[in-house]
Amino acid sequence: MALQIAIVGGAEAGEELREQAYQTGWELAKAGAAIITGGLSGVMEAASQGAYEAGGLVIGIVPGSYRGQANPYVNIEIVTNMGHARNIIIAHSADGVIALGGGLGTLSEIAIALKIGKPVVGLKTWDLINQIILADSPQKAVNMILKMVGKH
Amino acid sequence: MALQIAIVGGAEAGEELREQAYQTGWELAKAGAAIITGGLSGVMEAASQGAYEAGGLVIGIVPGSYRGQANPYVNIEIVTNMGHARNIIIAHSADGVIALGGGLGTLSEIAIALKIGKPVVGLKTWDLINQIILADSPQKAVNMILKMVGKH
Amino acid sequence: MALQIAIVGGAEAGEELREQAYQTGWELAKAGAAIITGGLSGVMEAASQGAYEAGGLVIGIVPGSYRGQANPYVNIEIVTNMGHARNIIIAHSADGVIALGGGLGTLSEIAIALKIGKPVVGLKTWDLINQIILADSPQKAVNMILKMVGKH
Amino acid sequence: MALQIAIVGGAEAGEELREQAYQTGWELAKAGAAIITGGLSGVMEAASQGAYEAGGLVIGIVPGSYRGQANPYVNIEIVTNMGHARNIIIAHSADGVIALGGGLGTLSEIAIALKIGKPVVGLKTWDLINQIILADSPQKAVNMILKMVGKH
Repeated sequence: MALQIAIVGGAEAGEELREQAYQTGWELAKAGAAIITGGLSGVMEAASQGAYEAGGLVIGIVPGSYRGQANPYVNIEIVTNMGHARNIIIAHSADGVIALGGGLGTLSEIAIALKIGKPVVGLKTWDLINQIILADSPQKAVNMILKMVGKH
Repeated sequence: MALQIAIVGGAEAGEELREQAYQTGWELAKAGAAIITGGLSGVMEAASQGAYEAGGLVIGIVPGSYRGQANPYVNIEIVTNMGHARNIIIAHSADGVIALGGGLGTLSEIAIALKIGKPVVGLKTWDLINQIILADSPQKAVNMILKMVGKH
Repeated sequence: MALQIAIVGGAEAGEELREQAYQTGWELAKAGAAIITGGLSGVMEAASQGAYEAGGLVIGIVPGSYRGQANPYVNIEIVTNMGHARNIIIAHSADGVIALGGGLGTLSEIAIALKIGKPVVGLKTWDLINQIILADSPQKAVNMILKMVGKH
Repeated sequence: MALQIAIVGGAEAGEELREQAYQTGWELAKAGAAIITGGLSGVMEAASQGAYEAGGLVIGIVPGSYRGQANPYVNIEIVTNMGHARNIIIAHSADGVIALGGGLGTLSEIAIALKIGKPVVGLKTWDLINQIILADSPQKAVNMILKMVGKH
């Protein structure tokens, strides 16, 4: 089974953050990982696009109830109909997590992932929790998470 | 995005039922559908193996909390940590459902899928609900579900 | 901790079924049980009203995302934002289940409750599964479920 | 329907934090609120005991699969079988949240509650997020949350 790495971040994101999300998705796909996101817009869409355009497999675990709500770069759409509880499923399904940006949803995702023992690398995100490893570029974030999950 | 068809059935299954699940998975994969199962043994494993060996994409939406609980033919493992509630996620994520065999879990899956308006084809399963379309072979079940989801 | 008995049934129900749901809620409350329903209309509301008017404690485990969606007879509203997956929580939270009427949601609830080993008594419901004990009046249904959960 | 206030905090807690959780539960119950916790030990148990001994109604929304896992002060046990996803249900079910102490689970709970627009008052907890209102005693925390939910 392929490595599964989650990229988490907000549905609204500025140009720079989206660019970094795209690069992160691209690098992970080139490293052979399937990527998991929440399947919607912003960081989720940019990361999906990066992985998709690098030829990777993109899984969107979406909050609503119907097929077809994911962004166009998602290959596999998991329809939870569970709103924010889908964040917990993302954390459980990932071998490691890269968090981009600083919203409350992202913070909850980081906290849950750390709580259940998943490695988390952050890029431009909350630096308050000393268990998050901070990276300063997509390439470094990807290298770090691959090392932490023992596949690099 | 590819068509996503769920194959649902019990974790314990006899030889004949497993053979039919294998054929169903194989035929769906050959038709270009990604298949979704509950990721464990019995019908789930046989269907996964069939789709896997036909070169398809196999998604396992599993009930427990940890990575690595899925059968070996699963490409993408969605770890819900939600027990039977993962059945609801399977129904929401599928464009259509093929049900094999007659356990209570399968019955609940059929009932929920019909409740939320998904087409359901049954093979050697409960015939009590007139909304289930019954098929008498894997090939027919696959042809019927593909027609019902409008892709054939 | 008090006994917790679920009364499950459809959001749409005719006069006779609502009357039986009311009586079932009333009798359970008089027997000292807290009742659990899906918190909405039809059988759920009638059962809630019966238990409420008998002075019982009424828990509604509701599917939507916001406070205040339950019927007016619910004392405690558990807001799941999980749609039909809340049915699984109802089954896990109940010591026993009384099912009224014949919808697909009710069938899924019965199947899951039996699957996880909860006693189920049915009143005017699906008779296809031999594990459901059928009763022909609210009083008998209540007496039977209380015996089955070992409190009578 | 009664006001429903959640008290969130870790399963392990020192003497001082448990004392504050007890007082918080007691004050909320005296103010007529039903309290919601995760139903287990530590802050959850101390808050439950305080509310219970003040004559209040105590709801435990528990993570495991079976009846009887809640602490002895819980009146109503909601059995989710959903692990940490039950935190999301707690946030949705509460009119307001009081958070005690500084674990990762508590942080995730705070982040989700704020994300979905619930008022949050913190006592000896994370002060990093400017939307959390910090209090320095149980009495003040209770007064503040009651004001914020518009019932004081």
